[in-house]
Amino acid sequence: MDQYLTPRGIELRKKVRNFMESIENEVKNYAYHINKIQLYQYTNTTEFPFHLVPKIQELGVNGFTIKDHGGPGLNEIDTWAIVYEMAKIDLSVSTFLMVHNSIGMQVVNYLGNEGQRARILPDCLKLKKIMCFGLTEPEYGSDASSLKTTAKKVEGGYLLNGLKRWIGNATFADYIVIWARNEAEGNKIQAFIVEKGADITLENVFVPDNNRLEHAKDFNSANRILEHSRVGVAWLGAASACGAYEAALKYVLNRKQFGKQVASFQATQLKLSKMLGQCEMMVTLCMRITELVNQNKTTIGQIGRAKAICTALSREVCATARELCGGNGIIIDNRVMKSFMDIEAIYTYEGTYEVNMLVSGREITGGIPAFK
Amino acid sequence: MDQYLTPRGIELRKKVRNFMESIENEVKNYAYHINKIQLYQYTNTTEFPFHLVPKIQELGVNGFTIKDHGGPGLNEIDTWAIVYEMAKIDLSVSTFLMVHNSIGMQVVNYLGNEGQRARILPDCLKLKKIMCFGLTEPEYGSDASSLKTTAKKVEGGYLLNGLKRWIGNATFADYIVIWARNEAEGNKIQAFIVEKGADITLENVFVPDNNRLEHAKDFNSANRILEHSRVGVAWLGAASACGAYEAALKYVLNRKQFGKQVASFQATQLKLSKMLGQCEMMVTLCMRITELVNQNKTTIGQIGRAKAICTALSREVCATARELCGGNGIIIDNRVMKSFMDIEAIYTYEGTYEVNMLVSGREITGGIPAFK
Amino acid sequence: MDQYLTPRGIELRKKVRNFMESIENEVKNYAYHINKIQLYQYTNTTEFPFHLVPKIQELGVNGFTIKDHGGPGLNEIDTWAIVYEMAKIDLSVSTFLMVHNSIGMQVVNYLGNEGQRARILPDCLKLKKIMCFGLTEPEYGSDASSLKTTAKKVEGGYLLNGLKRWIGNATFADYIVIWARNEAEGNKIQAFIVEKGADITLENVFVPDNNRLEHAKDFNSANRILEHSRVGVAWLGAASACGAYEAALKYVLNRKQFGKQVASFQATQLKLSKMLGQCEMMVTLCMRITELVNQNKTTIGQIGRAKAICTALSREVCATARELCGGNGIIIDNRVMKSFMDIEAIYTYEGTYEVNMLVSGREITGGIPAFK
Amino acid sequence: MDQYLTPRGIELRKKVRNFMESIENEVKNYAYHINKIQLYQYTNTTEFPFHLVPKIQELGVNGFTIKDHGGPGLNEIDTWAIVYEMAKIDLSVSTFLMVHNSIGMQVVNYLGNEGQRARILPDCLKLKKIMCFGLTEPEYGSDASSLKTTAKKVEGGYLLNGLKRWIGNATFADYIVIWARNEAEGNKIQAFIVEKGADITLENVFVPDNNRLEHAKDFNSANRILEHSRVGVAWLGAASACGAYEAALKYVLNRKQFGKQVASFQATQLKLSKMLGQCEMMVTLCMRITELVNQNKTTIGQIGRAKAICTALSREVCATARELCGGNGIIIDNRVMKSFMDIEAIYTYEGTYEVNMLVSGREITGGIPAFK
Repeated sequence: MDQYLTPRGIELRKKVRNFMESIENEVKNYAYHINKIQLYQYTNTTEFPFHLVPKIQELGVNGFTIKDHGGPGLNEIDTWAIVYEMAKIDLSVSTFLMVHNSIGMQVVNYLGNEGQRARILPDCLKLKKIMCFGLTEPEYGSDASSLKTTAKKVEGGYLLNGLKRWIGNATFADYIVIWARNEAEGNKIQAFIVEKGADITLENVFVPDNNRLEHAKDFNSANRILEHSRVGVAWLGAASACGAYEAALKYVLNRKQFGKQVASFQATQLKLSKMLGQCEMMVTLCMRITELVNQNKTTIGQIGRAKAICTALSREVCATARELCGGNGIIIDNRVMKSFMDIEAIYTYEGTYEVNMLVSGREITGGIPAFK
Repeated sequence: MDQYLTPRGIELRKKVRNFMESIENEVKNYAYHINKIQLYQYTNTTEFPFHLVPKIQELGVNGFTIKDHGGPGLNEIDTWAIVYEMAKIDLSVSTFLMVHNSIGMQVVNYLGNEGQRARILPDCLKLKKIMCFGLTEPEYGSDASSLKTTAKKVEGGYLLNGLKRWIGNATFADYIVIWARNEAEGNKIQAFIVEKGADITLENVFVPDNNRLEHAKDFNSANRILEHSRVGVAWLGAASACGAYEAALKYVLNRKQFGKQVASFQATQLKLSKMLGQCEMMVTLCMRITELVNQNKTTIGQIGRAKAICTALSREVCATARELCGGNGIIIDNRVMKSFMDIEAIYTYEGTYEVNMLVSGREITGGIPAFK
Repeated sequence: MDQYLTPRGIELRKKVRNFMESIENEVKNYAYHINKIQLYQYTNTTEFPFHLVPKIQELGVNGFTIKDHGGPGLNEIDTWAIVYEMAKIDLSVSTFLMVHNSIGMQVVNYLGNEGQRARILPDCLKLKKIMCFGLTEPEYGSDASSLKTTAKKVEGGYLLNGLKRWIGNATFADYIVIWARNEAEGNKIQAFIVEKGADITLENVFVPDNNRLEHAKDFNSANRILEHSRVGVAWLGAASACGAYEAALKYVLNRKQFGKQVASFQATQLKLSKMLGQCEMMVTLCMRITELVNQNKTTIGQIGRAKAICTALSREVCATARELCGGNGIIIDNRVMKSFMDIEAIYTYEGTYEVNMLVSGREITGGIPAFK
Repeated sequence: MDQYLTPRGIELRKKVRNFMESIENEVKNYAYHINKIQLYQYTNTTEFPFHLVPKIQELGVNGFTIKDHGGPGLNEIDTWAIVYEMAKIDLSVSTFLMVHNSIGMQVVNYLGNEGQRARILPDCLKLKKIMCFGLTEPEYGSDASSLKTTAKKVEGGYLLNGLKRWIGNATFADYIVIWARNEAEGNKIQAFIVEKGADITLENVFVPDNNRLEHAKDFNSANRILEHSRVGVAWLGAASACGAYEAALKYVLNRKQFGKQVASFQATQLKLSKMLGQCEMMVTLCMRITELVNQNKTTIGQIGRAKAICTALSREVCATARELCGGNGIIIDNRVMKSFMDIEAIYTYEGTYEVNMLVSGREITGGIPAFK
């Protein structure tokens, strides 16, 4: 993979890999509450390891592709190679950073005006402030564009009313991007920054004018952000599969049954080879999609398809990894059960398998919609 | 299914079904610690709901096929139909009862002498005492017959030394059946009852002569018990799939997206029909195997194959059920995520998929062993 | 399986099995042209082995459940056990007999009046005349109830116009049941017997009044016939899988590679055990559905689901059988490639997988249609 | 894909694509007898379309990477992109050219001495002579390195004795590379050119000294050739899947049922998107492996794994393509049934799925062999 990276990307990737390996045993006992998404469903602890935040900042990767206001200005490929290294070991730490960056700061970066960018980004780029993205509502999951939260114009700002659900980082975020229908602009879906303390149950939450993101004109703005971040979710799928494969390989090389290494059985080797082949397919697909994103040559269908197929295949790889560890596969020590469960959230967030595949299907068939 | 049951079986099945539905919301928040098997992995509570034990006893099904000493004397089909109803709602409650009965009391019933039966069974049949079955060791899972725990003859009894792992009910059982190599009888694997208080880490644990089960001559005795209980595990697989299917069906009928019931989409209906067809195949296979057990016409390969294929297929059905519930499929409210995780333990215990399938393979090929 | 059969059923089953084994090497070189369905796609010969027809008649099973006019009056279970034995060895011979009986004679038996029965059935029961069933049209496959063939009332009979496709036995049948819209009766779909010589391209084909089946009032009549015969198609799926399994088992026991029987490898035994478990599930499901048909307790959804799931699973088993035979799996000698290809027609005829599953889905969801 | 090609590669790829589209309707009625491998199993004609050979030569691609003696000297990526275009439409034409080049001429190119190259290659590069590769024997398929054919040194040459099977192009090849044990050199497996007329049943076939390929010292020589050509077989898998996908897409866009395009159903679009995603994964994997081959950075395990996983996945895609065409999927007109059957040979030749995956498994586990 390093062949595709810049020298700086290679160095950062290595740094991130070492960091993740150093915290592996610690993070597996933490559960990351993404609002109601417990990525560490399997653990008994449902808190986020806040003490790791400064260490994550020290890695020098926060900000991803953002160049000004102190961002590292990575290219797309370096970015995802780094996220890949994180997600291989832990989907929660990587999801935390993905949410903060790809659907947090990027919203401000792309859809905010220059003043909004200058006000919000610097602290976020230092991880002094955390962002999150409030689109989904309890009754509007796959059908997000039908959301019901409203923004009513009042003097100096807006009053927001509605409910949001499944919002990653929401329990501790400082800035929450709330997508709501602006009654004053024909009920178009636009974006408002709610600052810390606001509940995700929005009851007459006041937002000053300056917190409405100027370039978020309608739902297409949200779509453009998600299109981009879905590439990252495809990478999360690939990475968690690779991580589970590596953990399972380690286990079967060390475990003996019937007087032989478990790694020596045909049944084991056939599974290992298939998993590795599947990992290689996912990584090469993600890499290629990322190259095409760099060239502005992707479509929303292509990206959604990659997200759907990689997370679906990752589910299969993680299940095989967990099988290979036998009874010891269902305890926390061998990491595979955590991957097995964490991938479930990834498989569904940023569009279920079916919705992404039907968006792709509409594109393939020249525009025939099959879902609404 | 009622067509195969006796009138009493039908009545008990209904009673059990009503009971399980009444406790459904309660048990889903409990985790059942089977030693290190947390069947309720998903919940935060890892205790067993002991207050339910008297209510379970009142159902009148504990004891299964045991006729004397106060057992209900059910036939095989009635027994598994009742276990099926339990497992549809909750794999932990059903595993608790299965362990206590099928690999607990049945060991004493079949392998104990008359005095041992009279001493141990009555309290167990009243659920005043709980049993469990200690075969597996940390280093001998699939390869259980190579176990290393020893029983050294001393005056008046035996001293046991060794380690056991993955022993269901172990944390609270009153009688633990320990399978150990009797040094005095050519290291044959025999069974000893260890009474409450003994650790599963056995260090010079004294067991009186009378606690060695007289008819447990060698490893074949353990195999005969497991052959029987594996039919029950196949039923657990079928039942948890049926339970997950029903939960998912209920969800998609109530959930709307894109202005329509989720149940109305082609993608949904194709999944529902496939799941139901898979459930029907599992239930008819389990029923047929049970009939053949009644007629003494089964083989160990056939039973292991049924256990393996039903738990494998149940994994698939539970995963589909969890998909059908979208994001809401990964939270505890809709039961599908619990089934999805609990089936992992069932898939592996009483022989992994591979070991059961290779035992079957040896039989199919006229005796060619492929695993040792 | 014999446990479910009558003594006569057991005897007939054995007779049929012996017969099929005696013709196995011969029939595998024949292709059965069912109009355009070449069940023996793999062979170079596309003729039907007519010289076998008298031998098939001698088996005493033609007529299946028909009691009068010389029929054998078998019960449902005996019937399908016999079809199962045929289909295990050859899907074309069994399809020939299924078409002639289940969707040929049964149409006259159930939907003809007494005179029509007396006129047509006796010769068919002697296999002196062959029947077939003309429902599907080139443009109306899954959507058969939209068929366009018309029946215009003229003096003494009807003029039929239209096109039919995929009609099994059509190239040599003596009586073709044509389903057409009776213009004189509100365009309801009714059934007409076209006698030999009529083309399947119907251009003003005259049919005397007496050839309109009196009790075929509308499309539901066709549905009732198909509902019944689809049970048989589920059995064909189960049978071809069992036949392919047996052929593959025989091959791997005889074939050596790396100095060992191929049957001795883990990879082989895991496949064999899975295939056998899948066969057992299919057979137990088919048997149970047949019992329920006997009790008039089935629904169209349940039957369609069984047809779809058994033929889909059979595809999987046949593919595994073909794999197990390696390079020799793609030649005709080992029977597996023929099963692998023949099952494709079965998978699709009498309703594709999707249509059957969506009919089932409509039933499961309490009547929500997802296909039209 | 063109992004990876040279300008010349792009031009040749386009030329090949146009040529293949022009012969599509013709070749689908031909069966290509590769000895006993009938790639066109489905057709009734089992001859090779010899009249196309001059047209294939005119494309200017024969010779692939060979530079001297009139070869086109393509790079690896251009080569496989061209083979991909052939295989998308027809696996037999592409197999013919692959055999002649990758395991035919390349043997002489790499393992022959300069005189042998100068004598044999020029005519082969003009397609005036056709080559094939005789390694596999009836009893030694997966276990090819145990082959039994012998080469006995006699005056001026060798006498070959043995049997070969599954040799592509064998029925019409001018030069057959025979791998045999050279008794004079410790029974090492070496390569001999048998000229036209020699039977594949070798009974004292005389081969002059100069026909023993000088650099073919032992079985590793054969392995090196196969390692290289297996990359091409992975491409064949990817290509046939892509071709089947395109054919199915075309069909569902044109076919109507229930008054709507079949392409408009959810069930259809979910299949199309999954197929396309699978095709994209295969193509990106093949492209990446080819890049690594160019850099001499691949291993035999990695290449075998890619061959196995791509042909296995292609089987799945072809089966889905055939389903999407319903009843019309099993006739020859829509190309999908041909792909569905042709892929079976590809799935097995140059190493079965299992053998390739176990070679990969040996590598993954640091050298533990699970197959012998």
